[in-house]
Amino acid sequence: MPNKEIPYKIYLEESELPKQWYNVRADMKNKPAPLLNPATLKPMTFEDLRPVFCDELVRQELDDTTAYFDIPEEIQNFYKMYRPSPLVRAYCLEKQLDTPAKIYYKFEGNNTSGSHKLNSAIAQAYYAKKQGLKGVTTETGAGQWGTALSMACSYFGLDCNVYMVKCSYEQKPFRREVMRTYGATVTPSPSNTTNVGRKILEEFPGTSGSLGCAISEAVEAATTKEGYRYVLGSVLSQVMLHQSIIGLETKTALDKYDVHPDIIIGCAGGGSNLGGLISPFMGEKLRGENDYRFIAVEPASCPSFTRGKYAYDFCDTGMVCPLAKMYTLGSGFIPSASHAGGLRYHGMSSILSQLYDDKLMEAVSVEQTAVFEAAVQFARIEGILPAPESSHAIRVAIDEALKCKETGEEKTILFGLTGTGYFDLTAYQRYNDGTMTDYIPTDEDLEKGFAGLPKVE
Amino acid sequence: MPNKEIPYKIYLEESELPKQWYNVRADMKNKPAPLLNPATLKPMTFEDLRPVFCDELVRQELDDTTAYFDIPEEIQNFYKMYRPSPLVRAYCLEKQLDTPAKIYYKFEGNNTSGSHKLNSAIAQAYYAKKQGLKGVTTETGAGQWGTALSMACSYFGLDCNVYMVKCSYEQKPFRREVMRTYGATVTPSPSNTTNVGRKILEEFPGTSGSLGCAISEAVEAATTKEGYRYVLGSVLSQVMLHQSIIGLETKTALDKYDVHPDIIIGCAGGGSNLGGLISPFMGEKLRGENDYRFIAVEPASCPSFTRGKYAYDFCDTGMVCPLAKMYTLGSGFIPSASHAGGLRYHGMSSILSQLYDDKLMEAVSVEQTAVFEAAVQFARIEGILPAPESSHAIRVAIDEALKCKETGEEKTILFGLTGTGYFDLTAYQRYNDGTMTDYIPTDEDLEKGFAGLPKVE
Repeated sequence: MPNKEIPYKIYLEESELPKQWYNVRADMKNKPAPLLNPATLKPMTFEDLRPVFCDELVRQELDDTTAYFDIPEEIQNFYKMYRPSPLVRAYCLEKQLDTPAKIYYKFEGNNTSGSHKLNSAIAQAYYAKKQGLKGVTTETGAGQWGTALSMACSYFGLDCNVYMVKCSYEQKPFRREVMRTYGATVTPSPSNTTNVGRKILEEFPGTSGSLGCAISEAVEAATTKEGYRYVLGSVLSQVMLHQSIIGLETKTALDKYDVHPDIIIGCAGGGSNLGGLISPFMGEKLRGENDYRFIAVEPASCPSFTRGKYAYDFCDTGMVCPLAKMYTLGSGFIPSASHAGGLRYHGMSSILSQLYDDKLMEAVSVEQTAVFEAAVQFARIEGILPAPESSHAIRVAIDEALKCKETGEEKTILFGLTGTGYFDLTAYQRYNDGTMTDYIPTDEDLEKGFAGLPKVE
Repeated sequence: MPNKEIPYKIYLEESELPKQWYNVRADMKNKPAPLLNPATLKPMTFEDLRPVFCDELVRQELDDTTAYFDIPEEIQNFYKMYRPSPLVRAYCLEKQLDTPAKIYYKFEGNNTSGSHKLNSAIAQAYYAKKQGLKGVTTETGAGQWGTALSMACSYFGLDCNVYMVKCSYEQKPFRREVMRTYGATVTPSPSNTTNVGRKILEEFPGTSGSLGCAISEAVEAATTKEGYRYVLGSVLSQVMLHQSIIGLETKTALDKYDVHPDIIIGCAGGGSNLGGLISPFMGEKLRGENDYRFIAVEPASCPSFTRGKYAYDFCDTGMVCPLAKMYTLGSGFIPSASHAGGLRYHGMSSILSQLYDDKLMEAVSVEQTAVFEAAVQFARIEGILPAPESSHAIRVAIDEALKCKETGEEKTILFGLTGTGYFDLTAYQRYNDGTMTDYIPTDEDLEKGFAGLPKVE
């Protein structure tokens, strides 16, 4: 049956937007391992998590059986300001590659935060507001999450305190400035505003910070200030739930045109965008209704899936967070100064980790210069300057399309284009100047990270 | 008759996209004054303009009677990659202002060039390619136009040489880097690559350049290199023609929902976005079919409409371009270092100048800090960080909506949101820090500019 003629961009009508998020855990036979209390090594309870997260978000975090959650109307209305995001048919790229493959991408960059992060930020801010809180704290590395949260908090009139990894704070003054424009307070981390920050500064004077350290500071700030809670932009199951909006919209759009993707590709840092994109498709696979090939793409410099261990680990440097079972390089692993700051986290979502361990999903790692080569090729032919993170997915989508060229297969490839690279021009400059380098950790580097894994039975 | 329920964003279907541009000059009783040859003071002919512009663009420039021009299929296909742009109902802003007014904006910022400039860039690059040229030269001030042209040239495989005003080149390295990523050569102007550049450097050593000077260099480079032509992103009538796509899409979207805008507002530098937005509406007004109020918004620091003279003037500093009759502050007028770099040109489109002189359009000027106040208010409630240029229109749209609040009138206000401010964070930082200042030229300042106007009968 021939498909209807497919436009360059498929936009859903407002009335077609999802009204519920989908919780892929409900369909998983092997549930993700629970978060553990680091003191008792027992599963975290609602009461354990309440001091850290908003009540409703704790409920979402712990619920692995409810398949659908209603999206509150206020969040639906906010979504309408920047969603649906377009599902794009990459006609120009296909033509340039001279491939029989059909390439689609879901573009999440058309909002001021520049990425998909806003999908969960607005949800988390909404529940904080509903609970009557004064504000929230968080960390940000590359800056997308902090920006998204600033926008969400500004919309609901919440105070927003962002701990920004110090090297990012210094290298990305413009990201910082967007957050300030949205009324957020931005503190370079480690800072002397928290005990954990002071301790790290004492131990490692002159450190340029890390995401794990910024998380510790943000959690401490949230739990010691009246009327505040901590929010996180990736890794957690609640985030994956909110991000399912990406996959749900994509599936509705593809279904309208009778398109079945053979391969679904996404970059993976903490897993929020990949998890969101694949959720409804994975649900079909788990229920035996349909089959898809899923590929997680990670940087060779921070290869949690492809070279990590599936084990309980600390989520943060200060070890104030619950333990999570995940593919991890160890919380002490220090990734090189990759330009895909959003993919530098040592661990991976528990949900995706379990799916990967169950061989329901594949993973590949790619090197930085090959990623930027794909990014520039894509920018020039598809007209969008992609974020370094997103470009990991572009690299593998192009590779798969070129394989189709060799074999003559007319596969349908779908990938997540999570964001734009407007605040990553320093990285592009390095690529344009020919001074970008690659880095792959040695086995010895990895062993050092693994050595710090906690002993959990 | 009640309107259908209006979504937050109106997207046209691909099949509803305009297939022709509209030339408002065809419906003007008083045609814009012709370009004059600076040597003979006679109207420029096709042969006069051929060495500078592509043949087809010269035809478009000189044609003030043909109402519609077919959009070539290749351009339509490129448009499909980033158009239709959304027409947004500003529900959240309306609610915050507590106004009975209905506010709509046409958002042109959702593409990597960050503005509407791409609409004309792709057309100009297409005609250059079709004529078999090797490349094009141009100037850029704030950088939007240069970025847009780089993208367009990269798509068609054309060489692209951009003369970037030196102060911008130094202050906006990221804009420069986007252009390089798209394969353009970017030269800070004035430079020693042209005679006019060397002359200016000799006369004013250490100058930080101006748009008028960069134009002179780009024209010289185009006319002295085999296989090159010059292209320009604003002011010209051909540009207004291409930009009519903005207004045509807007009108189709509004008509679908039976919405009649009472007031149409746009920022005005050279006039390309305002002219494009209002063209089809102005056509109805000129033909007596409908009435609208049009408001051009310009910076108080560079008030071509509100304090300029309607006279023939040089378009560039080096005086190598044709003379144009326009509202102008004189080509020697040096505007202050406003943050809306795209609105600093001394003159204004001949078409808009004639319409303004015929009292078919109004103009107001606004000060920089009031503009940024509106920009931040808008960003926080509508979720889009606007360009400083676009924020001039936001300021006046808010002012008009607040007037409606006082009078209780339910007016429909439409404004053009031409672009995003992602590369203007230095300006936002100054506003956030409270160090932004305003500047209004004195009458004496203006007299100095007027003194340089050429004597033309």
